Amino acid sequence: MTTMSHPITSTLGQSEREATGALLQAALLDLIDLSLVAKQAHWNVVGRHFRDVHFHLDELVALARKYTDEVAERSSAIGVSPDGRVRTVAAGSRVPEFPDGWQTDKNVVRAIVEALDVVALRMRTRVEESEQPDPVTQDLFIEITQALEKTRWMWQAKLVES
Amino acid sequence: MTTMSHPITSTLGQSEREATGALLQAALLDLIDLSLVAKQAHWNVVGRHFRDVHFHLDELVALARKYTDEVAERSSAIGVSPDGRVRTVAAGSRVPEFPDGWQTDKNVVRAIVEALDVVALRMRTRVEESEQPDPVTQDLFIEITQALEKTRWMWQAKLVES
Amino acid sequence: MTTMSHPITSTLGQSEREATGALLQAALLDLIDLSLVAKQAHWNVVGRHFRDVHFHLDELVALARKYTDEVAERSSAIGVSPDGRVRTVAAGSRVPEFPDGWQTDKNVVRAIVEALDVVALRMRTRVEESEQPDPVTQDLFIEITQALEKTRWMWQAKLVES
Amino acid sequence: MTTMSHPITSTLGQSEREATGALLQAALLDLIDLSLVAKQAHWNVVGRHFRDVHFHLDELVALARKYTDEVAERSSAIGVSPDGRVRTVAAGSRVPEFPDGWQTDKNVVRAIVEALDVVALRMRTRVEESEQPDPVTQDLFIEITQALEKTRWMWQAKLVES
Amino acid sequence: MTTMSHPITSTLGQSEREATGALLQAALLDLIDLSLVAKQAHWNVVGRHFRDVHFHLDELVALARKYTDEVAERSSAIGVSPDGRVRTVAAGSRVPEFPDGWQTDKNVVRAIVEALDVVALRMRTRVEESEQPDPVTQDLFIEITQALEKTRWMWQAKLVES
Amino acid sequence: MTTMSHPITSTLGQSEREATGALLQAALLDLIDLSLVAKQAHWNVVGRHFRDVHFHLDELVALARKYTDEVAERSSAIGVSPDGRVRTVAAGSRVPEFPDGWQTDKNVVRAIVEALDVVALRMRTRVEESEQPDPVTQDLFIEITQALEKTRWMWQAKLVES
Amino acid sequence: MTTMSHPITSTLGQSEREATGALLQAALLDLIDLSLVAKQAHWNVVGRHFRDVHFHLDELVALARKYTDEVAERSSAIGVSPDGRVRTVAAGSRVPEFPDGWQTDKNVVRAIVEALDVVALRMRTRVEESEQPDPVTQDLFIEITQALEKTRWMWQAKLVES
Amino acid sequence: MTTMSHPITSTLGQSEREATGALLQAALLDLIDLSLVAKQAHWNVVGRHFRDVHFHLDELVALARKYTDEVAERSSAIGVSPDGRVRTVAAGSRVPEFPDGWQTDKNVVRAIVEALDVVALRMRTRVEESEQPDPVTQDLFIEITQALEKTRWMWQAKLVES
Amino acid sequence: MTTMSHPITSTLGQSEREATGALLQAALLDLIDLSLVAKQAHWNVVGRHFRDVHFHLDELVALARKYTDEVAERSSAIGVSPDGRVRTVAAGSRVPEFPDGWQTDKNVVRAIVEALDVVALRMRTRVEESEQPDPVTQDLFIEITQALEKTRWMWQAKLVES
Amino acid sequence: MTTMSHPITSTLGQSEREATGALLQAALLDLIDLSLVAKQAHWNVVGRHFRDVHFHLDELVALARKYTDEVAERSSAIGVSPDGRVRTVAAGSRVPEFPDGWQTDKNVVRAIVEALDVVALRMRTRVEESEQPDPVTQDLFIEITQALEKTRWMWQAKLVES
Amino acid sequence: MTTMSHPITSTLGQSEREATGALLQAALLDLIDLSLVAKQAHWNVVGRHFRDVHFHLDELVALARKYTDEVAERSSAIGVSPDGRVRTVAAGSRVPEFPDGWQTDKNVVRAIVEALDVVALRMRTRVEESEQPDPVTQDLFIEITQALEKTRWMWQAKLVES
Amino acid sequence: MTTMSHPITSTLGQSEREATGALLQAALLDLIDLSLVAKQAHWNVVGRHFRDVHFHLDELVALARKYTDEVAERSSAIGVSPDGRVRTVAAGSRVPEFPDGWQTDKNVVRAIVEALDVVALRMRTRVEESEQPDPVTQDLFIEITQALEKTRWMWQAKLVES
Repeated sequence: MTTMSHPITSTLGQSEREATGALLQAALLDLIDLSLVAKQAHWNVVGRHFRDVHFHLDELVALARKYTDEVAERSSAIGVSPDGRVRTVAAGSRVPEFPDGWQTDKNVVRAIVEALDVVALRMRTRVEESEQPDPVTQDLFIEITQALEKTRWMWQAKLVES
Repeated sequence: MTTMSHPITSTLGQSEREATGALLQAALLDLIDLSLVAKQAHWNVVGRHFRDVHFHLDELVALARKYTDEVAERSSAIGVSPDGRVRTVAAGSRVPEFPDGWQTDKNVVRAIVEALDVVALRMRTRVEESEQPDPVTQDLFIEITQALEKTRWMWQAKLVES
Repeated sequence: MTTMSHPITSTLGQSEREATGALLQAALLDLIDLSLVAKQAHWNVVGRHFRDVHFHLDELVALARKYTDEVAERSSAIGVSPDGRVRTVAAGSRVPEFPDGWQTDKNVVRAIVEALDVVALRMRTRVEESEQPDPVTQDLFIEITQALEKTRWMWQAKLVES
Repeated sequence: MTTMSHPITSTLGQSEREATGALLQAALLDLIDLSLVAKQAHWNVVGRHFRDVHFHLDELVALARKYTDEVAERSSAIGVSPDGRVRTVAAGSRVPEFPDGWQTDKNVVRAIVEALDVVALRMRTRVEESEQPDPVTQDLFIEITQALEKTRWMWQAKLVES
Repeated sequence: MTTMSHPITSTLGQSEREATGALLQAALLDLIDLSLVAKQAHWNVVGRHFRDVHFHLDELVALARKYTDEVAERSSAIGVSPDGRVRTVAAGSRVPEFPDGWQTDKNVVRAIVEALDVVALRMRTRVEESEQPDPVTQDLFIEITQALEKTRWMWQAKLVES
Repeated sequence: MTTMSHPITSTLGQSEREATGALLQAALLDLIDLSLVAKQAHWNVVGRHFRDVHFHLDELVALARKYTDEVAERSSAIGVSPDGRVRTVAAGSRVPEFPDGWQTDKNVVRAIVEALDVVALRMRTRVEESEQPDPVTQDLFIEITQALEKTRWMWQAKLVES
Repeated sequence: MTTMSHPITSTLGQSEREATGALLQAALLDLIDLSLVAKQAHWNVVGRHFRDVHFHLDELVALARKYTDEVAERSSAIGVSPDGRVRTVAAGSRVPEFPDGWQTDKNVVRAIVEALDVVALRMRTRVEESEQPDPVTQDLFIEITQALEKTRWMWQAKLVES
Repeated sequence: MTTMSHPITSTLGQSEREATGALLQAALLDLIDLSLVAKQAHWNVVGRHFRDVHFHLDELVALARKYTDEVAERSSAIGVSPDGRVRTVAAGSRVPEFPDGWQTDKNVVRAIVEALDVVALRMRTRVEESEQPDPVTQDLFIEITQALEKTRWMWQAKLVES
Repeated sequence: MTTMSHPITSTLGQSEREATGALLQAALLDLIDLSLVAKQAHWNVVGRHFRDVHFHLDELVALARKYTDEVAERSSAIGVSPDGRVRTVAAGSRVPEFPDGWQTDKNVVRAIVEALDVVALRMRTRVEESEQPDPVTQDLFIEITQALEKTRWMWQAKLVES
Repeated sequence: MTTMSHPITSTLGQSEREATGALLQAALLDLIDLSLVAKQAHWNVVGRHFRDVHFHLDELVALARKYTDEVAERSSAIGVSPDGRVRTVAAGSRVPEFPDGWQTDKNVVRAIVEALDVVALRMRTRVEESEQPDPVTQDLFIEITQALEKTRWMWQAKLVES
Repeated sequence: MTTMSHPITSTLGQSEREATGALLQAALLDLIDLSLVAKQAHWNVVGRHFRDVHFHLDELVALARKYTDEVAERSSAIGVSPDGRVRTVAAGSRVPEFPDGWQTDKNVVRAIVEALDVVALRMRTRVEESEQPDPVTQDLFIEITQALEKTRWMWQAKLVES
Repeated sequence: MTTMSHPITSTLGQSEREATGALLQAALLDLIDLSLVAKQAHWNVVGRHFRDVHFHLDELVALARKYTDEVAERSSAIGVSPDGRVRTVAAGSRVPEFPDGWQTDKNVVRAIVEALDVVALRMRTRVEESEQPDPVTQDLFIEITQALEKTRWMWQAKLVES
């Protein structure tokens, strides 16, 4: 039955819906924060690799925003209201805090690799945890993990001195 | 002189730089929060006007993100490090908080008009306050005000019952 | 061996091929009918939300046609001849019949939500049933379910009065 | 013979040219006024359907402008100078006057349907009257009638309450 | 007068409207079935000319769908509700039935030429029958006949052995 | 407070709003008439430079239409209903009347330069008069003046015999 | 019946087919020659208006080629083999011969207007003569006449001295 | 010195200019005829390979037209008026005549290979003959030969039975 | 820890990483060789179906190259260096060798079907073998299998004589 | 009055015109030289950051060329003939000379930052000096300053070692 | 061996490199100056043909810039540092100086033809002189000569009065 | 005469064909291997310049693939079957072997410069050797040499420390 507090019904049972919804909400917070961290770095990076890192960060922003949207809309699609407001993100995100002020490109690369490590590993856990309640949501987590691990390799490759 | 703590010098004098930088930082917080509020509404709106409001909100997100970037990069361009991290935004934004959970399209329109009222009026004040320290930054505030007032009209027009 | 009655061989064993083929054929009938129902509604809707619903329906037509093609071609790819002829669809589709004549936008929204409920739930069942015989076909059913549930949310959201 | 007062000769005879030219001139005035009425409504509409109506009107403006141009250039092509100046339009258009000031979306829809009724019916008459003097011009009137009747249906469909 | 059972009024008189509406409804059924037959052939064709015929059929699908839409919307535009539901099509289409199972490219070409013969000749009859009640609809039938006869030539040309 | 007669509130005070609204309304009339004059010339020009002038005029039409829209929508954005109806334009425009009938390219160039002189000078005055009541609107007038003076130079350059 | 000498059958009766085929064949020769004349002028024009005329001629080439193709393919579509070989064109075209060697832009304009006069008038006659045997072909001749008369106006307009 | 009979001077000496001009004029005739032959085949081909050959011929038309234009404009660029009028082509082309009436795809392929043999070999000769008088023109002949030999291979490959 | 010999760490454990890496490396060799075989056939095919097969092969090349890249980059993303050098491919690919010299289209189709059989079946095995060590890589193998089986059907369909 | 020595009149008074013209002429020289310096660096840079700097320089060239054109055309628009000939630029530009021969990327970055410092500061002065004589020109200088300061930040950021 | 003063080695021997480098450097100066002359004319042309000449000049600018870049980069590619700085161009270009102030279109055409004469003839000489030291560079000079002679024809054609 | 073992005849004599064919075959092997080496580097590069080098390598892959195709198709066009199979390439390529495993960006740049040195010098030799047997093929070798030398400069420029 559709009411104002539950206007969107679900094709999932009650407990599958709650379990899946919780996984999606946690992913949402990580991805929003990741997009804000990447933008912060985009504006504050300095160093001889400035331009390369500056644009690479904007691709990361685009990636994070794309999956933010898909995760939130998957949540709505299973009838769970997503919460991506700034104070909810500030309280619930697990992405390591980015330092304030100007940052050298070297420090930026290190901070981004660290952030991607956290976000990718947590996403990989969700792949396992979502299989039973909802294989359709699992497929989305698999796609996001694939994308995060690919971008993580590209950032990590930059850590090597030559 | 360029040092690590001041790697970007300015074509402005010290006090003009500080005054302008403070105005840009405040604008940055409002715009980031506006983009998050609009996304939150985009995912949670329900009602017969769902699709219209859902897509209208994404245009607002695009507008807020575009000017977020221009404001932050103007700040960098005058040598002031911008701060757009999630906890800084949560603490410093003046945009009214958006309620949690599903919202009818009517409530969404009302909340967005309110948010735009606050953001547009504060931006208009910055037009005046930036003229003296930096007419170049003022020109950016004028452009943003024009865009905010145009979108505010379009949202307000929807408040009329017919 | 390739003969005229079996010109396309399969990488699947005989029973996996038959089980998977039957699931694909049933999905095909639902999706073709869904596209015809959506077109019928597209031409016959009236009401103050005419334009919104008229175009939203064409997106649904596009979605149904896209997956109609992918389902039929997956069937050919595993060596099972798909049957999408009008009389086969008329006899075998499980999509609720759409009423004739002009329909108010409100009625159209209700009818589409009902049709999507039926089609999405049946598709979700196929996700389970296809895992064993063919995980490759299962992946296609997962993708279709994801798309149907997303569009179903957007249509259901319009049922709320505001 | 080409002179300054008749620089463009015609492949039509004198009386066919005059008859056809008169039909084209009348169509020109209706279409220019229709485009101005639609723009006026585009700027002044308010109501919950604002955005839908606002953009639907711009499509009507585009349609009216496109055929304005084709009608005027058809007139030139048969050697009759078209007159689309503001005072000629103000004096000769038969499109009902649009009220001044803000208008609810409901009123706008009603006014546009009325305007399209007048313009479409007058155009349909021209289809008959142009067959004998110039079947080439008739073909253009047929195309315009088809377009006007299609858009008229879409606006009229919005009059139904649901 | 606009009522729910007749929400769309017409610029045609009552009898012209009925005569024209009947011609459009019959055309609609032929065109929908033609698009389904062409898709069926698209999925089931085998033979050395597979790829050529496979893609040629998709162009035929596109053509049939385009005119399906224009015919149905012309019907709405004159105030006659079009009926393109699967069971109506199954009952009323005059397109010869396409055989089930895999088909050689040679058989497919033959079947398509046959189908186009039927559909094109019936459409040509409608050109005559629509002139009096509605020359605007006649123009649409002329355009469709032109397109069908062109595609029919291209398919027939393939029947010649070389 | 939002009422039907004042559905759009303003971020400007009452007197600033009235002063700015009057300037925008006058600009609106000039720009609509300019677009109609340019179209009239577009259809009626003859002479060896026909094609050059014919297309140059269409660029002028595009320019005039673009700023017509921006001026009207700025007016709506500050809460003043714009009036661009044909009889209001006929009564209030200050653009010199364009002669009827065919015109040589030389005469067309002269008439357009004259029209641009009037419109550009009046727009430049509005730049001064709008600074105090609304610097945001002033910025729009500056942009329009820049565009008009640029196109005026290009038309004036054609007056020189060689 | 399909044989090698008559591989393409027709939806027209024998005499309608022959009459229509003859009209199409004559149109074909005029249009091919028109495209060659326009190219010849394109390469050989000199004079202060060189560039304007040079590019205007290429638009004429494009127009002539487009309708050459449509006319020839309409002929094939009704089962009459079109003949557009160089010697057939040289023998049968009625387009006035273009002089050899360099030509001033003034002479080119005069020659093109003359050629368009001939071709447009002959096409207009075909509109009448094709109505009875085949209204579908007539519609094509109407479209071509419309295009030829429009381009003829544009070329004739250049004959006026200013 | 520039006169009307020699309005375009040359950067080549008198004899180089004449020798090069003669080579270009001969190439021009071959290429125009090749484009007409390919169009004739495009309209008259029948057979099971109809569609493949029909479209392949249009690529050949495009190729022939592109180099027709480059050859003629190279001639103008060295001050030699090119002659591509229909009767000049009919008299001077060396391309084998294409038979009239419908042609099987097999015959078309054979005829096109023959035509390309003639045109390619003659073009290759011009590569040698143009080196001394004008290496710039030679470079154009080399490019055309490369293109002709590539297309010739593709047509010849179709002659093999399989 | 990141060292030069292991600069890219993994989100997988040691044994999962090795197992997954080995599967990816084997897939890489097959796909590179498939792309080279398809190119070889693309250049050497002859026969009446030349053009169809020639272009169909280029689509196969594009498909093989696309998945070559995704497989290699997935390997890098899990920290295993991929090896796609020519001698590694020559030694390790399991794709059947393509014969040298010109090949009829019939032979080419047969050889490609054979190659696709081998590659698709081996890929399907990898779907099973990758599920446990890494479901994210499994998802990529599923996507590739889907694409290979679809293209395999299209090539196999061409084996049927008609 | 328009004469040959003053063919373009102005909407500005005599002294405003002269003052504004002088500012525009000086800006023109700086911008042309900046574009040539950036191209020189584009061709001569070497070093490990070659590709990054090489392409970054081309964006600077594009920026400098775009504003060169707008400045020169603004000058024409106010009736002052701009002078951008090579010897005028060589004599009047204030951009520091770029060294000859190959340059390391580090040196290039340093030289570009220096050049941008000079050009941006001089442009900022023009913002002040143009306000009184011509606010329309001032708006252009503001836009250029904004762009120069943004690109200057990006180049300066590269000076930091990391 | 690569050193800082010779960081780019060459595939040419020492004397071939020097000879070729000198030819490229001279071409570079001509082409840069040609682009500046064309821009100067673009801004200063007046007369009834203003628009035609204004845009034709911008195509010349594009052509000159394109080959400027290719010539300079060819120089770098053979290991010779190119010098395109403003004072080097001012000192070394052989393009005739363009007069200052406004110029009639007639004078502009004459000046451009003169400039193209000089530049094209000098480029043609380089074709001969580069054959021995470097046929690869010769090919570039041939391409540039072809382009210059083509554009020269188009400008010269405008010198003829009609 | 066309037979299966020689289905493609040539416009070249027997010995010219063999000499040219051998040159093309050798070029083919180098280019295929170059594309594989560049891809291998693309996947295995690590270091602070990772992203720059990663994408630069993909441009090299595109270049190598483009000319691979043109070389192979030129061979077919002169009637010589090209051989680009993996084992033929492994046996015949002269490109230095790329080391296995991860490589720092510095090592990658060095290896690519070395590979380009070999390939470019061998290609330059072919320019000389092909002039006599076939100037048309020579032109292709010139184009490839130009492209290789340009890309070689860009890679070599990165070897300089700064």
